Amino acid sequence: MTFLFKSEARRGEVWRRRLQAEFPDLEFRTWPDTGDPLKVKYLACWIPPDDLGKTYLNLELIISVGAGVDQIDLGSLPASATVVRMTEPGLAAGMNEFGTLAVLAVHRNLPAYLSQQRDRTWEQLPAVAAKDRSVGVLGLGVLGSGLLERLKPFGFRLSGWSRSPRQIEGVTTFAGNDELGRFLADIDILVCLLPLTDATRGILNAKTFDALPKGASLINVGRGGHLVEQDLLDALASKQLRCAMLDVTSVEPLPADHPFWTHPQIVLTPHIASVTDAEGGAEFVVESLRSHIAGQDLTGVVDVRRGY
Amino acid sequence: MTFLFKSEARRGEVWRRRLQAEFPDLEFRTWPDTGDPLKVKYLACWIPPDDLGKTYLNLELIISVGAGVDQIDLGSLPASATVVRMTEPGLAAGMNEFGTLAVLAVHRNLPAYLSQQRDRTWEQLPAVAAKDRSVGVLGLGVLGSGLLERLKPFGFRLSGWSRSPRQIEGVTTFAGNDELGRFLADIDILVCLLPLTDATRGILNAKTFDALPKGASLINVGRGGHLVEQDLLDALASKQLRCAMLDVTSVEPLPADHPFWTHPQIVLTPHIASVTDAEGGAEFVVESLRSHIAGQDLTGVVDVRRGY
Repeated sequence: MTFLFKSEARRGEVWRRRLQAEFPDLEFRTWPDTGDPLKVKYLACWIPPDDLGKTYLNLELIISVGAGVDQIDLGSLPASATVVRMTEPGLAAGMNEFGTLAVLAVHRNLPAYLSQQRDRTWEQLPAVAAKDRSVGVLGLGVLGSGLLERLKPFGFRLSGWSRSPRQIEGVTTFAGNDELGRFLADIDILVCLLPLTDATRGILNAKTFDALPKGASLINVGRGGHLVEQDLLDALASKQLRCAMLDVTSVEPLPADHPFWTHPQIVLTPHIASVTDAEGGAEFVVESLRSHIAGQDLTGVVDVRRGY
Repeated sequence: MTFLFKSEARRGEVWRRRLQAEFPDLEFRTWPDTGDPLKVKYLACWIPPDDLGKTYLNLELIISVGAGVDQIDLGSLPASATVVRMTEPGLAAGMNEFGTLAVLAVHRNLPAYLSQQRDRTWEQLPAVAAKDRSVGVLGLGVLGSGLLERLKPFGFRLSGWSRSPRQIEGVTTFAGNDELGRFLADIDILVCLLPLTDATRGILNAKTFDALPKGASLINVGRGGHLVEQDLLDALASKQLRCAMLDVTSVEPLPADHPFWTHPQIVLTPHIASVTDAEGGAEFVVESLRSHIAGQDLTGVVDVRRGY
């Protein structure tokens, strides 16, 4: 039986060593050298092979090498396959770091000071105490709740919104579409950490921005598909939004002629907020295979109907 | 008797109200409307009046409105005066925020990504886990030790250096000139939070940079006088240093023709890391006056010989 790996080469080498040590009978193959597709029981990938549902008919486990599964067409999988999304600790650690960095950067006016540096302007902008600033996180899974935990020591007012009700100590939580408006009404810094599904696609749109207090800021560390990009440009132009930090875009890499590159109120990073650690990812895969083989519950199993 | 205020007008209004409510017999005057200088018992200032030692002969208490006293010539004060530096909680909160922001920004390659944005380049740079990154703080007073506390949850290896030995849980500490080299040898991200004194002026120089591992980064949130600016430019050019975040410069505002403005590896902010909160500062002044009048110990008293 075959473990098929379709991702970065450097990560593949770490995983190959770890899996061969743990499961000596398993054949580790790297895409596109698949061997007999009917022998592939396990697949680790970001973008799966096109012919997944038709060719890999004995697939039992699909492991997404990243934090999401929005890149996988969940409707076209072999009926036999369970989909698992990566939840190794390095992913959350990276997001905790980057999310905290982004919130503090917006809170302390870093985007405006970067503009000032470009203009050779030395001017101190009004500072707001953390207790007078509210940070709201869309999405309260491992990443969203982990970020809120990291933000607590700074003294921000913290809120969170998720599809289904969640309770987090020290955080005011809201749930479902009915409570979205009430959540947004008091948020100075909005962080998107949602999974991308049919229900969340385009959630960062003009209506959402208009529901925020004037002068709020946006941090998108979710997916490019969450954001209606023209609506962000409009909201920045009208000063409804003050600035944005974007780690993801609708098309990646972002085309060179896209207005985000040069926008003075946008800080852009190339989808680096959270990256699966090679060693941590290998451990996650080993644990997943062990549990699967033993018939035990897996971590990170995707609900195909819900989409995450 | 007079309380003479020589600082920003907005802060002055808050302090005036608070002090008049607390000490109705005290005459609150704002520079340059000093009245009879011999009646001035208390002075709150950043830069003191030039003729301090000759004119304000009954001065009992000088309160620096900021976190340092390096702007005051401690050798020219009236013999009667005690000097106190501001230690209101907002100052430390601001430095905790900005220091954490700067460390995370350097750790996650933000300066390089800002350069990439300018060049319209979408490229993921190698990430380093926090546990494989060492952060070293020069100066272990309230601000330095507070920053180290905030950094702990992220899992960095943490070190600190101070003039006299200090112990901080979870932090490897070094003291005095003899241990400076050993401290620097293992630091990936060096943060300067020292007071500026004759002993620390120019401490961020070529010799210090050469003692760091190649590719280390510098964050200066101390004073411009700590840094030998040409040595930083040389260290960045030789790649001995990878990048720098500077909140302070030798001349402020930084002249428009200074090379820091446009340096691709330097992120520059206009001395905003930590600003005295108007209300918090007023409380600090009230407490200081109360203690002084009652003959009790004051917080933040400066050792004039030591310089901080």
